[in-house]
Formats: sequence, C-alpha cells, structure tokens
Amino acid sequence: MKITAVIMAGGRGERFWPKSRNGYPKQFLSLTKDGETMIQKTVKRLLPLVQMEDVFVVTNVNYARLVKEQLPRLPEENILLEPCSRNTAPCIGLAAAVIRKKYQEAMMLVLPSDHLIRYEDMYADTLRQAVSVAEKDANLVTIGITPTYPETGYGYIRFERDTDLGMPGVYRVERFVEKPDMDTAKEYLASHRYLWNSGMFVWKASSILSNLEKLMPDIYEGLQRIEAAVDTAEYENVLTKEYQAFRSESIDFGVMEKADKIYTIPGSFGWDDVGNWLAVERINPTNEYGNYIEGDVITIGTERSTICGGKRLIAAVGVEDIIVVDTDDALLICAKDSTQDVKKVIENLKICNRSQLV
Amino acid sequence: MKITAVIMAGGRGERFWPKSRNGYPKQFLSLTKDGETMIQKTVKRLLPLVQMEDVFVVTNVNYARLVKEQLPRLPEENILLEPCSRNTAPCIGLAAAVIRKKYQEAMMLVLPSDHLIRYEDMYADTLRQAVSVAEKDANLVTIGITPTYPETGYGYIRFERDTDLGMPGVYRVERFVEKPDMDTAKEYLASHRYLWNSGMFVWKASSILSNLEKLMPDIYEGLQRIEAAVDTAEYENVLTKEYQAFRSESIDFGVMEKADKIYTIPGSFGWDDVGNWLAVERINPTNEYGNYIEGDVITIGTERSTICGGKRLIAAVGVEDIIVVDTDDALLICAKDSTQDVKKVIENLKICNRSQLV
Repeated sequence: MKITAVIMAGGRGERFWPKSRNGYPKQFLSLTKDGETMIQKTVKRLLPLVQMEDVFVVTNVNYARLVKEQLPRLPEENILLEPCSRNTAPCIGLAAAVIRKKYQEAMMLVLPSDHLIRYEDMYADTLRQAVSVAEKDANLVTIGITPTYPETGYGYIRFERDTDLGMPGVYRVERFVEKPDMDTAKEYLASHRYLWNSGMFVWKASSILSNLEKLMPDIYEGLQRIEAAVDTAEYENVLTKEYQAFRSESIDFGVMEKADKIYTIPGSFGWDDVGNWLAVERINPTNEYGNYIEGDVITIGTERSTICGGKRLIAAVGVEDIIVVDTDDALLICAKDSTQDVKKVIENLKICNRSQLV
Repeated sequence: MKITAVIMAGGRGERFWPKSRNGYPKQFLSLTKDGETMIQKTVKRLLPLVQMEDVFVVTNVNYARLVKEQLPRLPEENILLEPCSRNTAPCIGLAAAVIRKKYQEAMMLVLPSDHLIRYEDMYADTLRQAVSVAEKDANLVTIGITPTYPETGYGYIRFERDTDLGMPGVYRVERFVEKPDMDTAKEYLASHRYLWNSGMFVWKASSILSNLEKLMPDIYEGLQRIEAAVDTAEYENVLTKEYQAFRSESIDFGVMEKADKIYTIPGSFGWDDVGNWLAVERINPTNEYGNYIEGDVITIGTERSTICGGKRLIAAVGVEDIIVVDTDDALLICAKDSTQDVKKVIENLKICNRSQLV
C-alpha cells in the first residue's frame, strides 16, 4: 500500500520567543548546530519510508512561503493550506480527504513537524511496525513514548498489556488521559501502564475517514465537499467556506478518545518534543563547561548556560544556568528554572499592543 | 586668591565596558537617570567655588571633541590636550604651568572627572577648608575619604591625629600606602588612622611646581619650556616634544609620597568612585524589586539586577543579581559578584585583534 506522510506544521509555538514569532514558529527554526530546521529534519527522517511526492504538509496559509523555502523539493500541490486554525481534527481530515481523492486508499503517517528523534533507524522501524498494524481492519495506531520521568506537560495513553493482535510490542489503548498533576504523573510512571502521547499517528485514509464519519459527522460532511472540489477551480472557495465552518477540535478528543481498535506502539527512539529553550542543551553537544554556545560569544566563568547570539558580540561573565537568546529586535535573558514564564513576556507584549514583537 | 579647577579627564576606564570604550571612556558616560555625564556633574558641582572660565580640563587629545560637546560653556583654551598618556604627574604639572603663565599664582582644585558626590554642599565646604589650608606656606592638601569597609581596591592615607596647624578636621599626612590585602585593609579600618586616597588635591600652582622642581626636576624643566611657549605659535610643537619625553609617573608616587607639608581633610560627603557596574544600583534609585532598569525592558520574576537597555527590547525572566548592558555591537551579561572579570573580556578582545570593540 502507498505510504504517505502528513506533517502538521500549523502550530504557532511561543515557547521559543524571541526566535520564534507568530510569523516564524518553531517548526521553521533551526535549533541545532547543523542548521537544519525542525521541519526539514522531520521530512528527512521519513525519506527511508515515504517518497517526497507522497509527503503532505498541512500548515497555516501564512506559512506557505516558509514551507516552500525550506522544502524546495516538496511538490507545491502537497502543501495543504488551512484557511484558518481549527486544531488537529479538521487538519488531519483535510489531509485524509485529499489523499483519498488522489490515491483512493493509502497509509498515512501523521506527524508533528517540530519534534526531534535521536535514533532515526529505530524510529523508522517503529513506524514500519505501526504500518503493519494499521493495514489490518480499520485499526488506528498511535506511537506512544515510554516515559522516563513524571512529566506533567504531556497527555498520557493507558494501554492494556494483552492484545488480540498477537504482535509483540503492540498494545491496545485503554484510554487517553489529559495532562496529570505531579502526584498522578508519578503514579502513571510507577504503574508501567502509561505512555506519553506524542501526537504521532498511523492509519489508512479510509480508517480515519470512517471514524470521522461516525464520530464527527458534521466535519466529515464538509470534508466530502472539499474532497469533491479537489483539482477543480472551486477548490479554494470550497475549502475556505467549509474550513471556516468547522469547529475547532483535536483529533485526540474528537476521535481517539472515542474510537475502537486503537493500538499503541511504545517508541524508545530518543524522542524529544523540544518544548522550550531548555531543550537546546539537551539536543546539542555542550562544551566542557556545560555551555551551548552559538554565534559570537565570549564566556568568562560561565557554566551550564545556553547562549544563542545574534549579530552582536555577547560577553557572559560569571553567570550560571541561564538562557540568552539574541535577535535583532529583542533579547531574552532567562533563568533555566523559569522558561515557563517566557509566555508572560508575550502576554505583556500583547497587552501593550506590541504585536510586531510577538 | 583666584581659585581654579583642574579636572583630569584622560582616563580610559575599561570597567564600564561595553558602554565605555577606548574612544568613549567612563567620564563621558551618563550612569544616572538624569542624563548628565560624569564630567558634566564634576564641573557642575564646582560652580559654587570656581568660575567656568577658571575650569581647566586636562584630557587626551582623542577626547577633545567629547569635552567640547559635553562642556560647551568651557572656554576652548581651557581644554589642555595631552599629546600622549603620561599619568598624573605630567598632567597636573602641565595644568600648573598653564595656570602660572595665565595668573602667576592661583589655587588649584585638582579633581578626577569620573567620581560621584552625593552631598555637594558638604563637598564644597570641604574644598573651601582645603583652600584655607593650602593658602598657607606651600602646603599640599589631599582630600581623604573616611573608609566605611575594608576596600582592597584603593590606596590609603595614614594620618597623624596631631597637627601643627591648629585647625580642627585637618590632619598631617604620615604616609601614602598602596592598595592593601584584605587583612591589612581590615587593620587599617580598625585603626582609625587611615583614609582612602580619593585622588583629589588642593594646592597653589606655586606649591606643586616648587615640589615638582625639587622632586621631579626633569619634568619641571620640560614644564618650564612648555610654560614659555603658552600663547605662542610654538606651543603645540613644544608641548608635543616635551610631553612625549616625560616619563610616566603618578603624582602620588612622584610627589605626594616624598613631599613635606602634606595635609589631609577627611571628606564624608558621599563620595563614590563609581568603579564598576555595581555602582549603578548604588547611585540610582532602584524599584520595588531592587532592580535598576533603563530602556525598553520587561522583567518577570527578576530581582536585584541592573539592566541598561539599548535599542532593542530586553526581557529578563527569573534572573537575580545580574547586570545586563546592551549596546549596538556588544552585550554584557555579568553576575554581580563577577564585575572584576569584565576586564578579561577586554583582554580577550585585544588578543583577538578586535580593537573596534574595546
């Protein structure tokens, strides 16, 4: 069966401010020294599994130019532009409709555009295994991540040890649960019955569409009208009209929490969601002082710090556990234990009508 | 007797990098919110004692333009330009020679250009008292500062409690001592026999010149030739030739440590030498979080920090006890306990031939 990839690249991500902006979100940033952006890495690691012509990127209309620039080999018709933001259910539905129109049936690897994978071979193997599960019936497969600590910022997947498939390493999903508090997260970790929900899915176009038809019939009807308009002069008008009418809903809440035949495969391929500036020292080599340094930087007595320079010299003297990010019009200096408060800066800028800096 | 002021403004001061540069040293910076520069404040606080036409500024030839810009009411002929740097003995000698030529005799208040005085009335009173001491014989007066803690970065003056002058509050200097180590500084503080050497002097032109004649005859001879050339077409040539031939020597070592009849008056007028970036929060009001903020700055959970913004937004999140100074081409981020290491940044820049940043 034809294997396609659907890369979701519409997110606005504020947690990498000031490098990420509304007009330049995280998936288009390079956060590693090799200069590759997150979305470029996402596509590159799929190429052992998927041909470039079968990669689809769903993104906000505002980011069309960035996708074209960063993925010049991607066929332009594979860039699916959301006229507005409606969360992941309409986004994935749109891709499924376009893929059904083009191929009648195909496997879809549905993937975020802004995560990092350390062991790409193991990642490909996990996806291949997911494909073999998803080929049967209308199975939906979600890639879970084996937790390593009680993270409170992710949703979790509770799985059953036994499965009716008879495939080792594949588990039936019992339920999806929201982000837990710390005590609950510790219980989840100790129970060995929970995985992190990574937002990576594998299914046939027909499987997800039949679930949408059953569980979100209003959206499914709109998708049918969009599918009918694909490759016609009416496509853009129909897309805009139908998409704007969609309610905003996540695929997790809209489908996954209610569907049958959901399986999960625990991935342990060095997944990192690169959630905030703290990730940069995790995903890059640091020097002998534990610093990650980029650009024109002089450090004196500085340790365990991340310094991303811009056009000017930065001298860091005697500082520890700090994150510095320099851009042309804004500079962030943040203690490593305060990265969650970067969003307060953005709130402040919005309140003060300084949206050019957001 | 005519009272003149001689303001020494040739210093290159590296401790306010990146705001201070070789071409823009500390005395020409504003480090307070009122926008006045250090040298402007120095002149302004003297005006109760000295007429503007009797203020002389001795500075490096490279800073002539800055002096003119910042002190537009200063007569241009009162800017004495050192052709090269030769420390304070030649600098003060030059001023004394020019003043003797102009007035035959006059009182000289010799003052650094980059210190801050909190209680200017008390400062003026102290200088008046110094003048009354310096009028007698060839007395040399140095203004001492009553120590408040065991500082190891200043020279000290050991004084005798008894004096032959019969003037309360005026003491005979026993000797000048170099910067002490911490134990010695603590002894000095406990002994109540030492003052900080502030580098402020009061004497008649004739007094310092007769001391130079006796103690530094080589320099005195050159000064005589310069004095003879004042107001002639030859002045610049003679000055350049003689000044370049001078050895580099401080007035402390060349004269004060060897001369007789040296008196000191302990000043307690809120002197601050504004020695490094730590001074900024001392000499300015701080906000309720203990921060001193200048420019376009957003602080979230930030305390006891000094942030001097430039043209861009600075967001400081969760940081404490830090100094941030932004300029167009260089940014300093320095822990408050590491300000002494800023000079290592400058050393690094010099080694790397990046003198445009020094």
